[in-house]
Amino acid sequence: MNMQLQVPRPGPLVAIGGAEDRSQEAAILSRVMNFSGGEAPVVAVITTASSIPQEVFDSYKDVFSMLGAAEVLDLRIRDRIDAAAPEFVAMIKRADVIFISGGDQMRLTSILGGSPVLHALRRRHQEGAVIAGTSAGAACQSTTMVYGGAATDSLRKGAVKMAAGFGLVDGVIIDTHFLERGRFSRLMEVGATNPEFLGVGIGEDAAVLFDKNTILAFGPGHVILVDSSDVTSSNVFELDDGEAVSVLNVRMHALVDGYGYSLSDRRVLGPEELKATSLEPRIAYT
Amino acid sequence: MNMQLQVPRPGPLVAIGGAEDRSQEAAILSRVMNFSGGEAPVVAVITTASSIPQEVFDSYKDVFSMLGAAEVLDLRIRDRIDAAAPEFVAMIKRADVIFISGGDQMRLTSILGGSPVLHALRRRHQEGAVIAGTSAGAACQSTTMVYGGAATDSLRKGAVKMAAGFGLVDGVIIDTHFLERGRFSRLMEVGATNPEFLGVGIGEDAAVLFDKNTILAFGPGHVILVDSSDVTSSNVFELDDGEAVSVLNVRMHALVDGYGYSLSDRRVLGPEELKATSLEPRIAYT
Repeated sequence: MNMQLQVPRPGPLVAIGGAEDRSQEAAILSRVMNFSGGEAPVVAVITTASSIPQEVFDSYKDVFSMLGAAEVLDLRIRDRIDAAAPEFVAMIKRADVIFISGGDQMRLTSILGGSPVLHALRRRHQEGAVIAGTSAGAACQSTTMVYGGAATDSLRKGAVKMAAGFGLVDGVIIDTHFLERGRFSRLMEVGATNPEFLGVGIGEDAAVLFDKNTILAFGPGHVILVDSSDVTSSNVFELDDGEAVSVLNVRMHALVDGYGYSLSDRRVLGPEELKATSLEPRIAYT
Repeated sequence: MNMQLQVPRPGPLVAIGGAEDRSQEAAILSRVMNFSGGEAPVVAVITTASSIPQEVFDSYKDVFSMLGAAEVLDLRIRDRIDAAAPEFVAMIKRADVIFISGGDQMRLTSILGGSPVLHALRRRHQEGAVIAGTSAGAACQSTTMVYGGAATDSLRKGAVKMAAGFGLVDGVIIDTHFLERGRFSRLMEVGATNPEFLGVGIGEDAAVLFDKNTILAFGPGHVILVDSSDVTSSNVFELDDGEAVSVLNVRMHALVDGYGYSLSDRRVLGPEELKATSLEPRIAYT
């Protein structure tokens, strides 16, 4: 019998690359539900990023209900007045899982940035609630967020558009639909502008769990890590906007389900190592 | 006055990423013409890869004539009978620059592979003629050639389709339209299957010159080098076709005009170093 005092700890943070399976299988979303630890969690769905919130909410209501949610709450936040509304803050406070849908990440940050709803979300995360987001709802999680720039234009100075994100995880910059939209050059440009941050490029139907200093890849798709920490040179500071960016010595890893990464050691953790060393049941490789 | 015996040496080999400028500017094609060293070179255009050879030939005839070609020869090789025809072999023998158009690289290798025209082309290359190709005409140059596989499917075992190429350059595998079609994951899969070969991913309106052990990037676009020689692990041999491939520790370089790479030392050469050390006027950085 464990009599230790239970100190609250931040909950799991999950970033999904978009287009996750919402059918019976729902490999990723069922993991998200399991991360909450409860039998029948309350799920809050934030559809602010989407221009079709009704359709998006209905779709997630179906899948989360099927996966055993006690309730699926509709956080239909469309403007900054909504983002301060006590009823939405109250919903966040009741949620065990807070799910942020896809759409436009600039809608998320411009409507929710600094709002009472976002403060409540951060507090629930610190208390242990699961925060998960897909596509725009994943991209917004980093401290600096990528919000635009066609892959075909990137590696041209200024092509990748960045803004301040929600800062739910440090040390990384997240991009989504990564393989499907060929966004490797986007994160190479991001790395050239500041090599300190690990680029986390999440493919469709793939996800990462951020848990303290460990990243775990899961789901059927790929997660590409773009490590610019050994970059030896780039011309990016010499250029005018639109000129071609060079960047040398970018390290990449293509991870699949069961692989992880240590942000503190900057190295890949294989499935065996994760199984052997993980103290966290939530990242146990099953 | 240089009285040394002139030993024949292989000519420059140029791979272009597709969609090169054919207007007045024609930065890449004018470099290709200059590489021949002659005042008014004879240019042979092989349109075998294309399904619209007349249009393609007309377009290159215009640009090469504008750039000072003495003649632009129409190598309208459509089948293996053509590929053995003495008149086409004779044209190759007269050419100072042999240009291979884009289209389908499998048409190139299946029609020209082992043919008298290809033998003549190799001989002319050894004698010093310039060989240049764009898109399919570039991809075919490596010993193993990538000929298919949607970028969105790659890093799934078997998604990238490979076959034997013309082997005009050793040690590399060439891919084209690289940034524009997001083909990074293709060359990561190729590297996982055999880390020995340097992936050379050429963007549109970008080119590489292969000269002995040196690669030089030129033109307005990017050249991405995918170096898998330090790959620490991949699951590729454990998988069934279609399963997600992991590959760890791939090094990438985004080169722009004036940067080079030493295939023997496996390292990037900056513009200053290329200027200082190059003994070859043909790769002099201007």
